[in-house]
Order: sequence, then structure tokens, then C-alpha cells
Amino acid sequence: MFFASDNAGPVHPQIMNRIVADNAGFALPYGKDPVMDEVRASIRKTFEAPDAAVYLVATGTAANVLALGCYTQPWQVIFASEISHIEEDECNAPEFYSGGAKIKLIPTKDKMTPQALRDAVARRDPEDVHMAQRGPVSITQVTERGSVHSLDELRALTAVAQEFELPVHMDGARFANALVALGCSAAEMTWKLGVDVLSFGGTKNGCMGVEAVIFFDPSKAWEFELRRKRGAHLFSKHRYLSAQMAGYLQDDLWKTTAKLANENAAYLAAGLKARGAHFMTEPQANMIFVSFPRAVHQRLHDAGAQYALWDAPLEGPQDEDIAARLVCDWSISRTQIDAFLGYF
Amino acid sequence: MFFASDNAGPVHPQIMNRIVADNAGFALPYGKDPVMDEVRASIRKTFEAPDAAVYLVATGTAANVLALGCYTQPWQVIFASEISHIEEDECNAPEFYSGGAKIKLIPTKDKMTPQALRDAVARRDPEDVHMAQRGPVSITQVTERGSVHSLDELRALTAVAQEFELPVHMDGARFANALVALGCSAAEMTWKLGVDVLSFGGTKNGCMGVEAVIFFDPSKAWEFELRRKRGAHLFSKHRYLSAQMAGYLQDDLWKTTAKLANENAAYLAAGLKARGAHFMTEPQANMIFVSFPRAVHQRLHDAGAQYALWDAPLEGPQDEDIAARLVCDWSISRTQIDAFLGYF
Amino acid sequence: MFFASDNAGPVHPQIMNRIVADNAGFALPYGKDPVMDEVRASIRKTFEAPDAAVYLVATGTAANVLALGCYTQPWQVIFASEISHIEEDECNAPEFYSGGAKIKLIPTKDKMTPQALRDAVARRDPEDVHMAQRGPVSITQVTERGSVHSLDELRALTAVAQEFELPVHMDGARFANALVALGCSAAEMTWKLGVDVLSFGGTKNGCMGVEAVIFFDPSKAWEFELRRKRGAHLFSKHRYLSAQMAGYLQDDLWKTTAKLANENAAYLAAGLKARGAHFMTEPQANMIFVSFPRAVHQRLHDAGAQYALWDAPLEGPQDEDIAARLVCDWSISRTQIDAFLGYF
Amino acid sequence: MFFASDNAGPVHPQIMNRIVADNAGFALPYGKDPVMDEVRASIRKTFEAPDAAVYLVATGTAANVLALGCYTQPWQVIFASEISHIEEDECNAPEFYSGGAKIKLIPTKDKMTPQALRDAVARRDPEDVHMAQRGPVSITQVTERGSVHSLDELRALTAVAQEFELPVHMDGARFANALVALGCSAAEMTWKLGVDVLSFGGTKNGCMGVEAVIFFDPSKAWEFELRRKRGAHLFSKHRYLSAQMAGYLQDDLWKTTAKLANENAAYLAAGLKARGAHFMTEPQANMIFVSFPRAVHQRLHDAGAQYALWDAPLEGPQDEDIAARLVCDWSISRTQIDAFLGYF
Repeated sequence: MFFASDNAGPVHPQIMNRIVADNAGFALPYGKDPVMDEVRASIRKTFEAPDAAVYLVATGTAANVLALGCYTQPWQVIFASEISHIEEDECNAPEFYSGGAKIKLIPTKDKMTPQALRDAVARRDPEDVHMAQRGPVSITQVTERGSVHSLDELRALTAVAQEFELPVHMDGARFANALVALGCSAAEMTWKLGVDVLSFGGTKNGCMGVEAVIFFDPSKAWEFELRRKRGAHLFSKHRYLSAQMAGYLQDDLWKTTAKLANENAAYLAAGLKARGAHFMTEPQANMIFVSFPRAVHQRLHDAGAQYALWDAPLEGPQDEDIAARLVCDWSISRTQIDAFLGYF
Repeated sequence: MFFASDNAGPVHPQIMNRIVADNAGFALPYGKDPVMDEVRASIRKTFEAPDAAVYLVATGTAANVLALGCYTQPWQVIFASEISHIEEDECNAPEFYSGGAKIKLIPTKDKMTPQALRDAVARRDPEDVHMAQRGPVSITQVTERGSVHSLDELRALTAVAQEFELPVHMDGARFANALVALGCSAAEMTWKLGVDVLSFGGTKNGCMGVEAVIFFDPSKAWEFELRRKRGAHLFSKHRYLSAQMAGYLQDDLWKTTAKLANENAAYLAAGLKARGAHFMTEPQANMIFVSFPRAVHQRLHDAGAQYALWDAPLEGPQDEDIAARLVCDWSISRTQIDAFLGYF
Repeated sequence: MFFASDNAGPVHPQIMNRIVADNAGFALPYGKDPVMDEVRASIRKTFEAPDAAVYLVATGTAANVLALGCYTQPWQVIFASEISHIEEDECNAPEFYSGGAKIKLIPTKDKMTPQALRDAVARRDPEDVHMAQRGPVSITQVTERGSVHSLDELRALTAVAQEFELPVHMDGARFANALVALGCSAAEMTWKLGVDVLSFGGTKNGCMGVEAVIFFDPSKAWEFELRRKRGAHLFSKHRYLSAQMAGYLQDDLWKTTAKLANENAAYLAAGLKARGAHFMTEPQANMIFVSFPRAVHQRLHDAGAQYALWDAPLEGPQDEDIAARLVCDWSISRTQIDAFLGYF
Repeated sequence: MFFASDNAGPVHPQIMNRIVADNAGFALPYGKDPVMDEVRASIRKTFEAPDAAVYLVATGTAANVLALGCYTQPWQVIFASEISHIEEDECNAPEFYSGGAKIKLIPTKDKMTPQALRDAVARRDPEDVHMAQRGPVSITQVTERGSVHSLDELRALTAVAQEFELPVHMDGARFANALVALGCSAAEMTWKLGVDVLSFGGTKNGCMGVEAVIFFDPSKAWEFELRRKRGAHLFSKHRYLSAQMAGYLQDDLWKTTAKLANENAAYLAAGLKARGAHFMTEPQANMIFVSFPRAVHQRLHDAGAQYALWDAPLEGPQDEDIAARLVCDWSISRTQIDAFLGYF
């Protein structure tokens, strides 16, 4: 009963098999392996972006901060939600990789609103040398509260960026979960809306440790390569990153695992709802923020269930309730979910 | 006939098997996986260092710069050989991770000499605020020219560091190759000589992508953890780093693969010597710097042999010779070496 | 009628005379000039801090960020008011000088409250490697809205810092204005409350361009000297910084000019109040945040009056009002103030 | 008898008078003062560069590192002489302000040679991501050994930069001394040769503390302004920097004081030569590197003469000789020089 995160399950067999299959003989290092050519072609096709520059790194934080670094000057601010991963969970890595830029937090309950973003951007005076300057907008899709921006909602955000001529980064650690939730194409959720660079997550969705950074504007390609090396994120035995991503992309496995994760979460949410739990937001992908009685929590804890307690305010719960974040990955079984629900 | 580097061969089966074996169910992320406990215990035992703090990262550059970062202030210099990896091959990562420290290059033909190191250290005036201040000493073992410092040579270097109370880092990307060349213990080559922190290489010696950072003084442990996260080098699915290292350490595989690599290089070197090639230095580990006739190079090149041309000055060769770096890993076969030699 | 800032008036004659008087012959550079000895002794006496380390720099931002840099690790946050100078007016200099730390903004209307500070500090988990860690608390006295924390209010803030063992910085760009407003001693407003390092402003209060950084704990002295040089803020002809500060301290000129400035502001505020203007906060030092009819503003503007329009929300004003910040320095005359009021 | 540096003499009366004269009433802060307009116009005229962007800072290190920062990426190297001020005397400020770039030292006895520069530049492979990349060339005129590059020598250096399309910075802390030594125009020694940005020194030549940064290509102007603020080098009471520079430029005072300094040095050098002293290089500006008997040194020391001992190797001196650096500024009198020589 592991609902603590989607970063703790096993590597999907199709991906592991690909790693093992590619483990023969010598392969050129540092991204010159032939499998990377396959990956690049596959991602360009998937995103309908024949000119995109595509790179692989091993952690989601690396993807985010290296991507943002290419679009941020040290005297600028990155506009991001106050609940974003780059603010809350990266221990000043964005500040480090941008040379000391500031993250300007957009007050956000769940999804960043265009109005809140616009207020924050407009307030910065681009002619005032005392004030940190406007920099990129970073949007998280799926949000850190488990919501999925609709295409219209995304468009309203990128419209603000375009109005002020700011670059747009998308933190897509759970890109696949969002995509299958919306049922749109990869292009529709990114460059067609004005996203300049995407962190395309693999790790949380069945890979071992790989994320793609996809530049729809390839002019930043060489700078990214230098930043990646300088950040110590260029792998010599790169072929094992390539193999993961190749296995992940093959036959749209990435959509399959994301669908499994979302369906698991929906199944769990339905079960919780039936048992009277309160939800912070309506779960749309594979994360659930929910409150339920402390006594249930005690029973679950005693039974070894793992999930994160949450201190964010929830509406509706009673004094005796606790709040929790429950995350489903592709690998969790209905048996485990049923067992979990059985403690209610 | 791949002699370009030891970063291009396959993962050793024992390591790959361990990765596959550990790919079941959920495991706590971020280094809290149980296999990491096993790795930690094993390294402490191997190094006879029960208090050592042990961490894993995925690249050699990350190991070096995160380790050095813990011992370097931004207004200091790192004393290192002018041919060191941190100077030549890390694209300013040490400067980045130290917040802008300087690498002060010790003139070096092959091994750093104590006298050259001492001159560089002594010249810095610790009371002169205008001058970048003395910081750590970084020693590369095996050197980037394929030599192995003897224990006495290492001791003479660390003695300089101790005289000036400077911390000592060892870049051990090829630590295993040096250890088996010297036939000493891991403790003898490190903390018994005064090494404070070691980059213990795995990637070049049969792993997929894993290096241990070993602090013999564990007081830097928490700082390292924060630096690793901030550098985006903390893996969520850490168990796959642990599994690699566990497979690498099991039954001293790391020594076995290093011995294979060194023996392959010795076999190749003997063959080259018999064919009249000139050596820049006597090969002691798994790298050979050698010159031979351009005509031979042409034949090898046409046959698809891969190795790096070298522009460093060699003694002895004739005008028609080229210089090359030949590296053997554990996986290259005698058949391939014989084939290579057949073109002479 | 210049009320735009207190950084635009002339140097006080006593200070200029001292500069001219000290302009003879040779003086040792880089802070070894004898006048600096006099300054150091005077500040130690004034602050009843015989062990304090005292340094001079030329800008207020330099004082703040070099002082904070000594107490901030790159993976930490600086706790500061959302209206603080370090956040709003220093173009990411604190982030730059701390190596990429984050300023964690305390929601503040005017003065930081102990509760808001405590909430922000307590929320950070010092054992969670993903989260930027707790770092120093920076308090601005006079605040950027013209208020003066009472000693009790300051004590309540420093008590939070002490509870969590965090260092305390005071941005005292207008330290003198606060001191004379409270009528306390320099020691009472600083180290007796637990302030570790103070930016002691001179520039806004009659100097040409000089600020002292005063470390009540001198253990950071040498680090500060290195940071100052590395930041390019060490003056060769340091004697002219010393001369300014010596002239400023002599016969408590710094209190005299601060009193003048505060009295000018009180006189102006009284006049505005009599004319029905609305105040954002009760002016306590030399800054006034006020709203008045747009028509008055137009007349003032036409007459060449200079002051900053303010977009912060004010309570009370009507639709036709504008909001403004009016700052008085020591040099503005009652004639000018009367002239200004004459346009109402 | 003060020959320790040219940073310890008094401010020239013409400059001090201008400071005093400009100390009346209010002046707009942060470089918007009207005197800055005068300064800008004067420098543009002097350099025959009507489009140049002109800024003032207070220290030579600030001028150098802010100028270089605009032309250096963190993954690049700055090519500079191994005896340059940016390497030897700025405590890693260039590394700090460039975000962690490396200074690649050109082996230099006195003046950088085009061949040594070219070798260092050519060696860097612009397609090798592992290697720090080519960045700007920094040339010091007058050199730190007191020599003056001829226009031809400068042209040979900038030709290398142009061949590789690298920007050129000139550290002109003693620009005036070089200019009057060569008898050329300011344009001839800078942009006509391909210099992109100049640190134009004032402090060592009679000012209190002011240096101009002159961008012949004004496209970097706004970036410089942001970098200056972020570095905490933007003065609020900027008018006192402007006043210094205005006084310095008026009636070519800067050339007058430079001539005085050079003539003083020539007079001293002639006296030393007549007394049998050995010179490291032929003095061309206001610095002399010389050796003379230890007994003379002892007498001078006892008499209170101040100068720096030098440990650099000199040719010619005998065992009983010491080596010294003697610097003359504009203010030292012939009486003092004669007194100094009297101890030989």
C-alpha cells in the first residue's frame, strides 16, 4: 500500500528489457549513441516538431533548472506558482542554475490564474534598474495539487507571457498524466500554445531515471549542452538514458503507464468518495489530496500504508480528520487499493 | 577495436543482474532504499572507515565538484594538476559548484610533484586580501596520463597539504585501476595518507553510471546532501544507483574488472613495444599514451579502430609518427587487441 | 521641493570639510589609513561594543548583501519582509552575493510581525533536503513604509530568530532616524536585542556615499574582508570613506541630521494632516506615505515638486486621490516645505 | 618617500574643488545627475566615439569585472596574462561576476605576446563540450610590470581576438599613463584597434575613487546597468562620481597628472640608473621594477621610505641585492625623489 509518491515503483519491464537489450558492445558516449538518434526522431514525431532540440538528463530537477537556465538572466525573476516544484522541492537549484535569479511566487491555490500571473508580471517595471527584471514563466502540468490545466487555461497563461514577450517553460514531470487526462496531442499541449521548452518526465511514469528536455526553439541547443556539462549532468554512458527513453516511447508506453496511473487514482478516489472522504480538489490525474478521520489514518499506518500527511488547509474536514496526499503510479494493483480502502 | 575510452563498454553482467533483481515492488526514494544501507556498510568495511559518510551520484564530474564544493570557499583556489580532469574536462563545473573559486594549475608533466605543489601553495599569502586564498588540494589517481602515484608519492603530496592545513580531495575515477596496480588497501591509498574525501569511480569500470563520494570526515555529510540536491543530483529512484554499486562491490568485482582492464592495457602495451612504438610514460594502469607511424594509424583508422589522437609532446617519435591515447576497459577482448596489433 | 528621496541632498558641510581636511599627503590604502582607526574606535564606543568588527563600504546595497552573505548558505532562505529593500530594490544582489539563496518573503503590511515570521520559519523542515533551509532573519529599521519598530517589537522578532538559532541582520539604512525616534541607545537597538550584524547607514543622512557594516560577533571579520574584496567593494583610497564616517560621527552629527530629517517630516506631516490628507501609516521617521487629491498633485507637479507616486493600497482616500511617498532629508528647508503645503 | 603605489596620494585640487562646487542642493540620483551628461559627452568626444555607452563605478576591480561580465558566459574562459590584475589582485572577483568562468593564463614575462595568446585560444576546441569555451581577451595597458604596449603590439593582440571573433577588454587602470607615453589618441589606443570595452582609470591618477567603463559597442548598455546594480555598485549620490570624473577630464587634467607621474618615474629611474641599479624592464610609464643593494634598502627602510619588495626574478642583480617595485604618482615631489636617491 504505497501511495507516498510515483517515484518509488519499479521500472516498467518494457523499459528494463530495452536497457538490457542495449547492453552489448561499445557505444559512443555523451549522447552520440545511435539509440539517441532514435529517441530524438521519436520525440520530434510525437510532438510534430521536426526542428526540436532534444536532450536527456537523469532527474526532474535537472531538467527544470537546466531548461530554465537557458531562458533566465541572473537579474531576472522566474514567474511560478507558489506551490511549484521549482520553489518548494528543489533546494534553490533554480537559483543556483540561473546564477542567482529570483522565483517570483504567484499566489496559487491550485492552478496559477492568468490574472494573478498578469498582476505579478505587470508590476515589474522593465525600466527600473533597482527591480529584478521580468523573466520566464514556468507552468506545472499536472500541478503539484493534482489538477490538470485545460488547454484553454494553459492558453490564457501563455497569452500573458506572449503579451510581455516572456519565454514559457513547462514542468512536465507528469506530462503524460496530464496529456491522457486531456486527451489532446503533445503538440497541442506545448508549442501550439507557446511553450518554448518542456521538461518531459519519464522517471515518475515507469522509467528508471530519465527526463527529456525539449526545446521547440532549437536556438538554445548548444547553450544547453554546455550548461548540462557544466552542471555535471552529461552522462558518459548516455546509451542507458537513451535506452530508457526509447523503451518509454515505444508503442506509446508512456501513455499506457500514465493511463494506468490515472485510472488507479480514479478508482481510489471513487472508493474514498464512497467512504465519505473530503477532497481538496477534484483529482484529475494520479494524485489525490484528501482528508479522512484520524482513526482511519491510525489503522492504515499500523498496517504499513505509506503516504504523505499534508498540512495545507482543506475545506470540509472535521477536527478529527487528517489530510493526506495519495499518489498512484502505474504499478500499484487494484488489490492494494482495495486493501487500502478496506481500512475505512 | 574500441580504445577511445573506458566509458563506452557495456555494463558488467553482475551489475546488470543486480539492477534487474532489485527492480521489484516499491522502494523508498532519495537514498533511503535498503540497498543503500548495504552499500554504505560495504564501503565502510572496504575502506576500514566505520564513520565514513557515503553518497552516490551518477557522473564523475558530479562526484568531483560536489566533493570539492564542500571544501572550497568562493574566494579560494583549488590546487590541481594542469592536466587534471577538473581543469580540462569539466567545462567550469568546479568553478560553478564552488561559487566561483579558481583552479590554480600546478605545472605537471604527468604526476604532480610535491615541490611544484608546495611552490604554488606557499606563494599564496593568507593575509593578503587581494589574492585568492589557499583552498583544497585535488589529486588524481590514476593520473590523466595513465600513471599511478605510489603511496610514497601520494604521501609527499598530502604532506604539503597537511603542512598548510589544506583539505585533500582525490579524484578516483579510476581508483580501482590504481589500487590493483599498487596492490595496497583502499585505506592505505586514502585516509591513512590524509585524503579527506574521495570520488570513487564506478562508471569507467563496469557500472552504468554511478560514483561514490566518500567523506572520511563525516562532518560534511549534511552539507553534501544539500549540495547534491541543489545541484539536481539527488535521484528519486536511488535504488538503481545503489543496485549498481552493490553489484560492483559484491565479491570485489570492482577489483576484478580493474585488473582485467589493466591486464588488457599491459598486453596491448607489450605488443606495441614489441612493434617499436614509443611511450610517453610507462603505462601503469589502463591507459597508454603512445606514438607510432602515421601509416599504421591510417590502416587502423580504415579498419574502424577508435582511439583519441593526442597533441601532447612525446619524446622519441619521428616526424612521421602520430600520438594517441589508447584506453582499455575490462570488456575488451584479447582478440580485439590482437587484431589491433595486427595492423602494425 | 525635493521629496523624492533622502539620497539626493548635499553632503553635510561637516563631512565635506573633513574630506577636504584629510586630503593631504599619502595615506595607506585599503582601510589601513589612520582615520579608519578613529572610526573603528568611535563606532565601538557608540555601540558599547569593544570587540565589534567595523568595515566601510560605499553603498547601502553593498552593506546589506555583504553582511548577509556572511550568514547565508546558498541552500538557505533569508527571511525578510515582502516590502524590504533587499527584496524590492536590489535587483537580485542578495541572491548574487549569497550564491543563489532565496529571500523568503514575510507577508507584511508595514512592520514584520513575529507571528508571520515564526510561521515562515517554522514551516521550513530542517531535515528535509528538498526544501531550502532556514537562514538569517533580516529586519529593516526604519521600515520601507516609514515606521519604526519599538524595542519591544524588535525583541519579539529577534526572539523568533533565537528560538530557531538563526542569525539576525538589521538593514539600518535609516538607522539614525529610527534611533532618534525611539530615543534609545545604539546598543539597545542592536546587539542587546540579538542583532548580529548591522548595516549602519550614512549615505541617506548627510554623507557622500558610505555605510558601515558592524559585526557584533567579530568571528566573521576576515570572511567579510574577503567577500568585500571579491565583490569589488574594497576601496584603495579608503581614507575618503573613513573621512566621511569620521565627520559623520563627530559630535554626534549623525543624530543631529537624523533629528532634522525627522522633524522636517513631522512638520510636513502636520501640515498635510491639517489639510485633510490621509496617511497610510503614522509617520515616525522621515518618510510619509500619504494620499491627497489629484488636483493638488497636478499643481505640485506643475510647480516642479518631486516625489514618488505610490501604488500601494491606502485606506481612506477617495477615488480622485493619488498616493505618494514623501521623504525629507536633513537639508530640506522649512521654506520648501511651506511652499509645498501652499499648493494644497 | 612613498613609492608603494599610486593609490595613496591625495586627490588633485582641481578634482576636489569640483566635488565641493557640485555639493549644493538636490541632484537626481543613480546617474541621472546633469554632471553625468557632461561627463558622457566629454568622454565620447575624447574617444571620438559618439555612440559609446559610458558608466562610472568607484573601484578598478568593479570596472574590470562588470565590463568583463558583459562579455563572458559562465562556461567560457577569459584569456589574460598570468600577471594581470584580474588574476592576481581581485580575489576571484572576475570568477564571481562572470558566474564562474575561468581565467586562462597566458604565460607572460611582461607583455602578453600574440603567439602565446594565439596558442591558448587555438587550443580550445569550440565544439568540445567538455572544455571551457573561448571567451574574451583582456589586455592590461600599462602592464602590471610597468611596460606599455605599442600600438603595433596591441594590434597584434587584437588581431588574434578578431581572428577567433572574441571580444576585447582593456584594463586601463593606468590608461592615461600609457596614452601619454605613446603620445597617441584615446581612439587609436582603443576602438580603432578593436577594443570593445575599456576600464578607464581615474583613481590611481588623481581622483578619489572613480573609474569609467566605456562600451564602444553600446548594445551592452542596459545589461551593464543591471549588472552594476546587482553588483551593488550603483551609487545613489552618483553626482560625486560624476564630479570627480568631470574634474579629471576638464582641461585634460588626466593627461597632465599622467605626464607628471611618468616624468617623476623617469627622473627616479635615471637617478637609480646613474647609481648602478638594475632594471627588470625599461620603465615606460610610472612604475619601476628595480634591484639594488640590501644595505641601501636597509637605509631607506630606516628612513621611512615605502615601497613593495618584489620576489619576481630579475636579471643582473647580485646576491646582496633586493628587488623592489617603485611607483610614482603625480603628487610626489622631486624633493622626495632626491631624498630617496640620496640614500644610495
